[in-house]
Amino acid sequence: MTTARGDTGLLAPGWADSAAASATSDHAYLRALFDAEAALTRAQAALGLAPAEAATAVTEAADAGAFDVRSLAERARAGGNPVIPLVAELTKAVGEEYGPYVHRGATSQDIMDTATMLVAVRTLDLVLADLGRTEQALARLAAEHRDTAMPGRTLTQHAVPTTFGLKAAGWRALVLDARDRVRAVRDSLPAQLGGAAGTLAAFGAYGASDPVALPTAYARELGLRAPDLPWHTLRTPVADLAGCLVFTAGALGKLAVDVLTLSRTEIAEVAEGSGGGSSAMPHKSNPVRSTLIASAARRAPQLAATLYGSMAAEDERPAGAWHAEWEPLRDLLRLAGGAARDAVELAEGLRVRPEVMREHLDLTGGLIVSERLSAELAPVLGRARAKELLTRLAAEGRPPAQAPELADVDLDPTHYTGSAGALTDRALERR
Amino acid sequence: MTTARGDTGLLAPGWADSAAASATSDHAYLRALFDAEAALTRAQAALGLAPAEAATAVTEAADAGAFDVRSLAERARAGGNPVIPLVAELTKAVGEEYGPYVHRGATSQDIMDTATMLVAVRTLDLVLADLGRTEQALARLAAEHRDTAMPGRTLTQHAVPTTFGLKAAGWRALVLDARDRVRAVRDSLPAQLGGAAGTLAAFGAYGASDPVALPTAYARELGLRAPDLPWHTLRTPVADLAGCLVFTAGALGKLAVDVLTLSRTEIAEVAEGSGGGSSAMPHKSNPVRSTLIASAARRAPQLAATLYGSMAAEDERPAGAWHAEWEPLRDLLRLAGGAARDAVELAEGLRVRPEVMREHLDLTGGLIVSERLSAELAPVLGRARAKELLTRLAAEGRPPAQAPELADVDLDPTHYTGSAGALTDRALERR
Amino acid sequence: MTTARGDTGLLAPGWADSAAASATSDHAYLRALFDAEAALTRAQAALGLAPAEAATAVTEAADAGAFDVRSLAERARAGGNPVIPLVAELTKAVGEEYGPYVHRGATSQDIMDTATMLVAVRTLDLVLADLGRTEQALARLAAEHRDTAMPGRTLTQHAVPTTFGLKAAGWRALVLDARDRVRAVRDSLPAQLGGAAGTLAAFGAYGASDPVALPTAYARELGLRAPDLPWHTLRTPVADLAGCLVFTAGALGKLAVDVLTLSRTEIAEVAEGSGGGSSAMPHKSNPVRSTLIASAARRAPQLAATLYGSMAAEDERPAGAWHAEWEPLRDLLRLAGGAARDAVELAEGLRVRPEVMREHLDLTGGLIVSERLSAELAPVLGRARAKELLTRLAAEGRPPAQAPELADVDLDPTHYTGSAGALTDRALERR
Amino acid sequence: MTTARGDTGLLAPGWADSAAASATSDHAYLRALFDAEAALTRAQAALGLAPAEAATAVTEAADAGAFDVRSLAERARAGGNPVIPLVAELTKAVGEEYGPYVHRGATSQDIMDTATMLVAVRTLDLVLADLGRTEQALARLAAEHRDTAMPGRTLTQHAVPTTFGLKAAGWRALVLDARDRVRAVRDSLPAQLGGAAGTLAAFGAYGASDPVALPTAYARELGLRAPDLPWHTLRTPVADLAGCLVFTAGALGKLAVDVLTLSRTEIAEVAEGSGGGSSAMPHKSNPVRSTLIASAARRAPQLAATLYGSMAAEDERPAGAWHAEWEPLRDLLRLAGGAARDAVELAEGLRVRPEVMREHLDLTGGLIVSERLSAELAPVLGRARAKELLTRLAAEGRPPAQAPELADVDLDPTHYTGSAGALTDRALERR
Repeated sequence: MTTARGDTGLLAPGWADSAAASATSDHAYLRALFDAEAALTRAQAALGLAPAEAATAVTEAADAGAFDVRSLAERARAGGNPVIPLVAELTKAVGEEYGPYVHRGATSQDIMDTATMLVAVRTLDLVLADLGRTEQALARLAAEHRDTAMPGRTLTQHAVPTTFGLKAAGWRALVLDARDRVRAVRDSLPAQLGGAAGTLAAFGAYGASDPVALPTAYARELGLRAPDLPWHTLRTPVADLAGCLVFTAGALGKLAVDVLTLSRTEIAEVAEGSGGGSSAMPHKSNPVRSTLIASAARRAPQLAATLYGSMAAEDERPAGAWHAEWEPLRDLLRLAGGAARDAVELAEGLRVRPEVMREHLDLTGGLIVSERLSAELAPVLGRARAKELLTRLAAEGRPPAQAPELADVDLDPTHYTGSAGALTDRALERR
Repeated sequence: MTTARGDTGLLAPGWADSAAASATSDHAYLRALFDAEAALTRAQAALGLAPAEAATAVTEAADAGAFDVRSLAERARAGGNPVIPLVAELTKAVGEEYGPYVHRGATSQDIMDTATMLVAVRTLDLVLADLGRTEQALARLAAEHRDTAMPGRTLTQHAVPTTFGLKAAGWRALVLDARDRVRAVRDSLPAQLGGAAGTLAAFGAYGASDPVALPTAYARELGLRAPDLPWHTLRTPVADLAGCLVFTAGALGKLAVDVLTLSRTEIAEVAEGSGGGSSAMPHKSNPVRSTLIASAARRAPQLAATLYGSMAAEDERPAGAWHAEWEPLRDLLRLAGGAARDAVELAEGLRVRPEVMREHLDLTGGLIVSERLSAELAPVLGRARAKELLTRLAAEGRPPAQAPELADVDLDPTHYTGSAGALTDRALERR
Repeated sequence: MTTARGDTGLLAPGWADSAAASATSDHAYLRALFDAEAALTRAQAALGLAPAEAATAVTEAADAGAFDVRSLAERARAGGNPVIPLVAELTKAVGEEYGPYVHRGATSQDIMDTATMLVAVRTLDLVLADLGRTEQALARLAAEHRDTAMPGRTLTQHAVPTTFGLKAAGWRALVLDARDRVRAVRDSLPAQLGGAAGTLAAFGAYGASDPVALPTAYARELGLRAPDLPWHTLRTPVADLAGCLVFTAGALGKLAVDVLTLSRTEIAEVAEGSGGGSSAMPHKSNPVRSTLIASAARRAPQLAATLYGSMAAEDERPAGAWHAEWEPLRDLLRLAGGAARDAVELAEGLRVRPEVMREHLDLTGGLIVSERLSAELAPVLGRARAKELLTRLAAEGRPPAQAPELADVDLDPTHYTGSAGALTDRALERR
Repeated sequence: MTTARGDTGLLAPGWADSAAASATSDHAYLRALFDAEAALTRAQAALGLAPAEAATAVTEAADAGAFDVRSLAERARAGGNPVIPLVAELTKAVGEEYGPYVHRGATSQDIMDTATMLVAVRTLDLVLADLGRTEQALARLAAEHRDTAMPGRTLTQHAVPTTFGLKAAGWRALVLDARDRVRAVRDSLPAQLGGAAGTLAAFGAYGASDPVALPTAYARELGLRAPDLPWHTLRTPVADLAGCLVFTAGALGKLAVDVLTLSRTEIAEVAEGSGGGSSAMPHKSNPVRSTLIASAARRAPQLAATLYGSMAAEDERPAGAWHAEWEPLRDLLRLAGGAARDAVELAEGLRVRPEVMREHLDLTGGLIVSERLSAELAPVLGRARAKELLTRLAAEGRPPAQAPELADVDLDPTHYTGSAGALTDRALERR
């Protein structure tokens, strides 16, 4: 118990124990770093630049489980990145004959960036799966509650009626937007290969003259896109990751803040499937999933800001901007991955209370349809007098139903949901 | 002089007096707000929901120049947005007969969001034009300096040679990435129309039953995309704007920080076409364009963060998240617009000094090709002894040329630029 | 109307038309820039380094109203800051004889930083006054409602009772914390004087040998603190401003989000004194002051982040970090100033509804005191059985009063406010 | 090897293996959580509210090493914080008799916030020690190089001479500013104790009537300050931590970016004591310490922004804002702690090359003193003609020494360092 002191998410209930947590652990990065090294030697072998035996030897030795990640982490300090000690260890493990083929021609950043892309792809696949489940659950909610009227709220106040179906369709539209952005970025992520200053010169010194063949073979080994140019300081892939991840956190954040509001004790129009308990207050059922998603949505924008800030990376490798990417990008992957996991549970388990929504439509004594009353009365009384009448009723707390001028007007708030149903239908056509 | 006290960019040399500044001024927003109001009435008239005369009357009255923007700004305080006083004034200006057709069925956010999209489209068009000029100038630089060797630098130190052509091609690749993202977002920006809670109910109360026809007609009037759903709290368009603008600032920021570095008195491999002067130090020629672009790149990420943070917008209109978007989005438009303007001047005017670059390749006494020497010597001496030899030479400050083991090796750094030329050619094929 | 096209806050109802807006306008900055120039010449005259007539001539000419701020803004572009054209114009205005004494020995940053400190001091004084009024209003609310019981809410759910007095006392404590931080920073802000590279060398060339006398005299002219060192790239004053301003926005933000929650239609335990209206929905009374304060609290952290980021300023004047400070610092001053103004109105006008609070205490059918019941029952039934009983009651929706085990327990929620009263009293002792 | 999969800093060479890393590990937090629980029972015992044996039993059982942190992390998910499962386990470990005294009257946040303050105090003490060593090393550098002239640089260009002593004194002034801010915050950090809604009611239910005695006794047990009010949603301590930590990162960041610039191959006026190596390029000596500090300075502002953003925390415990604090605050502690560690090495090991600085003063052929020449010539030739002459010399690349008008002027740049020496002396008086 006392020996294993690595961090495992004690401060992060939002992503601890999630698939995204595993996919982004130090160990997962280590595995990806070794995957990148092995792929490089294999790609060189495939092009006849290294013996096939070297490829086999490196691939076999590149077993993350056989290395001490903590020790590598500590030794990363001297040179400022973990690839330097890793290459030393891997070379030793491969042995004298094929050791020289380890990392041949590459620079640390080739391996580090490629590993990061591998980790990103693996995590985005998890995110995509969870976004898929979430949107399906939301689609079901939207269809089921297509005509469930509820108060529309603006600036915290009842405005006019809406439907829960339209609300759920809106949540889903954002989830689909996130899915589209994540998917596009996932498919665009390139391997990194450039050598010390991005000219591929060292690979040339070892016999590779074609600037396309080796990067392409390398990327193919890894299931990544072949890069157009070495991107050591052209950080489009990282910026794009930042963009799709912060978008995802924000999209799920909208769902979360709505559930938080609608779950309030006084509102209680929805409830999470299984709320979190409290040791001292047995009656409490906290909207924990929403809370944790909302927490992720609060953090993601600033993490993305750091990544975007690193685009202004000087020279052929910057002194700080690159290093500043590593932890924030992982944090974003974790936050989005954890939030997507929580969103599945939230959406699949959400309990909706149409009867409470219906009751709330009457909370303003009919004034929730005052917009409609304005529209009905204006042609009759004139716009100014109509407004005056409604304002007076509101001030006096008198229900509009009691006003003789409104005797013939349909005051049923469930009849004033406009095109909510049609909009919901249309939104659900999107796949 | 003393009466016109509005802000005109005194603190913002990065965007003052630019086309983007004009396109995003208070007055430009006011114009866009009126454009939105007029388009709404025209769209209703086109669908037979309002008299054609009303459309004409509103369009004629909606002349931003006829209203006092400061007074509107001040009166925006009461209700928290400028549309409320604007509608009052416009209604009055239209007159008794057609006044009721002003803003009919709409909510403030319909107009505010639509106006923001109009301003954004107009500004993005300016940005796109300047990105276009910038990439062309960079393409010329890359082609011209395809084979101009210079030191590649990593973590501030000379690493191995690269070429100025490859560097310029990299800058251009980022500019093209920015252009592609801006263009895609520009073409996606929708009009906003939903009414009080996004159900289009009030339009229905005035006779519009089709949830598609009116928004489509409205968007067409404005040259914007028709929305899939009202997006009062589904902030994809704003998030997408944040993403493409912060990307643009970062892409240009890379160019800027490189020019800043290469312009240093000790390096002086490039110089801005016309540097900024100093009153007290007549010899100084400051890289002002780069400085201002770099400044924009420092600010944009945090502005984007605020916009992404506003995605988590509760209810049908949030109490704060929406309001927090207005100024940061304008700031981002201005920063990107100003940076793009400066980038044109920077790229078109950049003076390149190949001879200085050539000199610098010798600064390390030949060690800049030590990577190549490693590659050459390793097969002969073994990897370990090769490294030992080179480290010893570096420590002793002895030029590799003096080492007998290296007598036959090509030590010319201009011959060690790898695939830089080929990569440049390939990058320039992208349009 | 059409000529004065400067920005006047159309997108910023949170600060438009406030005293802080005036104190931070382009014109106010221009005035501060001229104040700094005039003070410099006067300080030199006071030390015998310039003729008294020069001091008079510069002071007279340094009349911001006499210069065209837009033109200066535009000409700031060439050199990247507005001081360069300003010095040229001022020199011309002073005339041939005393013109040479304008800006003598100074660098642009001396004037720009000093002017910024002047603007900051002037704005912080406004903020302090408004924080003072706010805390007094909150003190009154806390005292008046010392024993007004209301539901305490955690994670959106009723937890145990609290009092409105304690809540108001907490808001006030934050306001006092903000006041203390703002006051300390306000009194620490130094003038800037260093010359081209912060060595005061040029002043020496003009006869000033003492490194303390001139900066001290200069600071005294301006009512600022004399600097310990020139701080062109030692940005403590700017970082401290960022810190106290973002703190203020956050402190007021807490008040705002609480009022927003408690104002919800379903909760309605408080209401703003005069809510914002809606043209189409006459019944609405929006919590606009809280909305605008909350909006400021969302933006301030990212603006502060930019300022903190500029601490890492290279050399004797950085190429970008300094320029990136100007607008964000002004934005922060405006947001804090506007939020403080709104907080006064909010606190002074807040309507509190004790009877609604009392009703809400019964919403959970007595379970809001389940913590107390646990405490009472645990010794009798054992902790586990007590919890089981309460959980069962909650699940069945049965009021605790009906449980025979609880026949003798005081279930009145207004009796379970713990030390809320005593804590309130104690908090109000703080001045 | 394969079992211990927690994160140990593989992506964080900036803080891995540092004392701050240990002080902020999951395990360290777990220990602090247990410390808080034990202190609470002891404080109750000290006031006669619990048996002394309970205090002993809880203190003995509260041994972090005996619990499985990963399991606790995973079970934190259900309720959204780790205290809930921790209390369950601790209660079980304490046993039937004294188990009921575990966590009695407290809420999760009491323990979590208190533990966070404990971790913060322990880490800040490390930071303070390292800032102390750093400032001493910088004081030595400043004293030693009091008169070492070097180019002052503004906007990347040589401006006028300065001294390395003044530069080092400036770095030290920032470090002292950071130390003062950290120290003040460290001594202000309070324990947290309020119970479910901050009224201390549950403690009352268990017999504690005095709102001061228990929190004071609790805080004393922990070596923390007693709180004025429960601060569950009055986040001054967290905001203050954010402020002093981001300041520290920025202050050290200034040192780092200067060293990075001055270390450039072309400048080489300083070098890190032991630069980082490169496997492929034996000649490289990278400024790794500066790079990692600069990286921390890039990240800290956005982390602080998230913490400041959490000040706007609704209700008696917010649904997301609190949870969003945990990881960013730890990250800030780690970044500041790691940067302070690196700053010690950087400052103590920095190699300064006065002879290179001297050479560089001549790079502009004497124009680095053009400011002085202006001052000398202006009285003779008039300001305009003087400037014209110097501009012409600069444009022609002619050294001023060749101009007959300047025959008698002292052109030695080492004589034009103004008050740099005196300013350095004065700055070093600060302790």
